[in-house]
Amino acid sequence: MRGPIEFYFDFMSPFGYLGSVEIERVAARHGREVDWRPILLGVTVLKAMGLPPIPTIPLKGPWLDRDRERLSSLLDIPVRKHGLRGVNSLVAARAFLWIKARDAALAKRFGQAVFARLWTRGEDITPVEAVLAEAAKLGVDARELGAALETPELKADLRNAVDAAMAKGVFGAPFFICDGEGFFGVDHVWMLEHWLRHGHFNPARGERAGG
Amino acid sequence: MRGPIEFYFDFMSPFGYLGSVEIERVAARHGREVDWRPILLGVTVLKAMGLPPIPTIPLKGPWLDRDRERLSSLLDIPVRKHGLRGVNSLVAARAFLWIKARDAALAKRFGQAVFARLWTRGEDITPVEAVLAEAAKLGVDARELGAALETPELKADLRNAVDAAMAKGVFGAPFFICDGEGFFGVDHVWMLEHWLRHGHFNPARGERAGG
Repeated sequence: MRGPIEFYFDFMSPFGYLGSVEIERVAARHGREVDWRPILLGVTVLKAMGLPPIPTIPLKGPWLDRDRERLSSLLDIPVRKHGLRGVNSLVAARAFLWIKARDAALAKRFGQAVFARLWTRGEDITPVEAVLAEAAKLGVDARELGAALETPELKADLRNAVDAAMAKGVFGAPFFICDGEGFFGVDHVWMLEHWLRHGHFNPARGERAGG
Repeated sequence: MRGPIEFYFDFMSPFGYLGSVEIERVAARHGREVDWRPILLGVTVLKAMGLPPIPTIPLKGPWLDRDRERLSSLLDIPVRKHGLRGVNSLVAARAFLWIKARDAALAKRFGQAVFARLWTRGEDITPVEAVLAEAAKLGVDARELGAALETPELKADLRNAVDAAMAKGVFGAPFFICDGEGFFGVDHVWMLEHWLRHGHFNPARGERAGG
């Protein structure tokens, strides 16, 4: 029995949304679990890397727009390009961690609901009220969660989660770690699935699965 | 009869080398030609994008090392990690353009020889003498090429080629343009091949090949 596939995401990223759907399909095909782990891309990870927000990078930004459309088609996962400004995933990420500490399966459903809110309905996920509304729909006690969101403990939990991710080499979203192998981007899932199917990258070259 | 697949490369990049081998295989499977087009990644494209050399980016650099190993295995293309410092592809790129203006097929063989020199033999490609030696092995007049390398016309040709690439949205290497669709990275070739095979990304979603 192998461990879960670690799935690092930021609700802000449409590629993260595509990855969230696709990795569950791939994991199910191979009898593996997916462990959802929120990170904050812009304000922490990219800052540590000395990079600006990726969509703002000349040439790369427009290409990513087209790549999102193509991957959406290829994976058959509709993505709405919302016109919202100033979207921030901080509160949603904290809420995710709080729910996960109590019920990991429920947290995944919450994560899926937040992703769908932003990327299929095009509704904001920034305000506390929006986050609490998605949690309440799943039976989470919104008053208890709302109170937890203000605590220094939960804020520290998220900071620590992001630090732990970077310590493992995570530098973007979606990012997957499977049996110690890191895969960045939904466009890399074909390599992850090759790994799941064969346990190595190329037997002819003598490279075999570790562990 | 569709046009060639444009293949943008910098001899400096091991991913460019992997791409140079893989794209010829893919093109051959689908009866397409490959049009090789040199660019200069570090001193021009990344500068225009405001990015540092990609291998120096924290977290991403080490991951790319591992990704190069995995892609080398998956594609069964051995890559030697040379320990050379200060490698520069400027002269080789100029020489490529000069040869291509006279014989595109010969230029491709020259490009393959330069890639192999650096990435399978681990020998430098920076000095004029190294570039002329590879050209001479293919029957190119080294004295004539050597003289051309000093002309402002050839230097301008390369600058214009890089500008033209960026004007088409090229921002990295390898970068492929096929029927107007841009694909960045050897890890994106599966999407390019999907396009070649089907002429669209997903018929169920109504997205069809243009042109």
